[in-house]
Amino acid sequence: MRVIVPFDGRDPKTRLSALFDYGDRNEFARAMLQDVVSVVQDTGRDPLILSSTPLEIGDCPVSVDERSLSRAVNERLQAASSAVAVVMADLPLITDAALERLCTREGDVVLARGVGGGTNALVSRTSDFEVDYHGNSYLAHRSTAREIGAAVAEIDSYRLATDVDEPDDLAELLLHGEGHATQWLRDQGFRLASGAGRTTVRRTDVTHEPSQ
Amino acid sequence: MRVIVPFDGRDPKTRLSALFDYGDRNEFARAMLQDVVSVVQDTGRDPLILSSTPLEIGDCPVSVDERSLSRAVNERLQAASSAVAVVMADLPLITDAALERLCTREGDVVLARGVGGGTNALVSRTSDFEVDYHGNSYLAHRSTAREIGAAVAEIDSYRLATDVDEPDDLAELLLHGEGHATQWLRDQGFRLASGAGRTTVRRTDVTHEPSQ
Repeated sequence: MRVIVPFDGRDPKTRLSALFDYGDRNEFARAMLQDVVSVVQDTGRDPLILSSTPLEIGDCPVSVDERSLSRAVNERLQAASSAVAVVMADLPLITDAALERLCTREGDVVLARGVGGGTNALVSRTSDFEVDYHGNSYLAHRSTAREIGAAVAEIDSYRLATDVDEPDDLAELLLHGEGHATQWLRDQGFRLASGAGRTTVRRTDVTHEPSQ
Repeated sequence: MRVIVPFDGRDPKTRLSALFDYGDRNEFARAMLQDVVSVVQDTGRDPLILSSTPLEIGDCPVSVDERSLSRAVNERLQAASSAVAVVMADLPLITDAALERLCTREGDVVLARGVGGGTNALVSRTSDFEVDYHGNSYLAHRSTAREIGAAVAEIDSYRLATDVDEPDDLAELLLHGEGHATQWLRDQGFRLASGAGRTTVRRTDVTHEPSQ
């Protein structure tokens, strides 16, 4: 199965700006992308990075497309002759098992929600389905799929729901991640910090060279 | 299967104090508890609320136990002669399917993580396993289970991971909930609010009577 992984490297992860400078955010975003691509390849599927800028991630094919996320993805969905998955690049907790669940679930449109209302991953088996990632896309995608008469399935996955956008999300990565992005965070000195509520992160006093 | 649902009604959901007064927090916590108990009953299992204070929730049996959460749960785990589940009371997004996955997964100890490092649900099929809900309990429970030689299974569920503790969690309930707690939130005037990042909530100007 073709798995499209959209990536916007122009100014990634701005909501982490309080913790990371521009160069760090680029490194971290690429480490997360690498984690996603690795799982796609490990499960024998065909990744295609749909990138707003030229990019190299191992031997993964990259298609540079400067249009909006939704337009770029829709062109691929409508041109596809078989099932296509779209998996966001900021899901470093993704595992082989989580991707298998997504890709093997029956349905014309299979949706995996993100925390905060986004659509973190989907499979489309109909060229009639169109995405619109603007705003609270999950409920909109479910409605769209039903309107075109598609059989809709929903995946209940913490690993697919956890896109990493905000400082608190980094705790999830340190708790449950094992890939490049987690290692990058640890190398930057981030560690779990337990307090009264949910576990958060703190930065320890390791020497690190800012990348910019 | 016996499903223990611990509930502490003494001062529930303090991290929602900026939005709700004491009476509201009590009502909301009970609405979430009702949602969890309903799913346990709907799937043909036997709920037991382990409560720090006397409580009535429909026809659900309640055992009042003033000891700490961990001590109260451990006594039940160690006395059990068959599999026991422990499901937190603040999981209003739980569905029949999510509970089925938890309870039917093979393993001596089956764990479902919570956002922020907690253990939101588990099944124990060995009287050797003990819980300790203090701090970052998920990784500790996994270690404990392995140390006693138990076969450990992990459930990857957004619905079980989403305990409702903080204001942002309310958005998840309005996005994906359908039970008593979601209805209670709507009745209080809460609606989804979309902005630049994740969907949040806003309170509309409905007339409502504070319960205290």
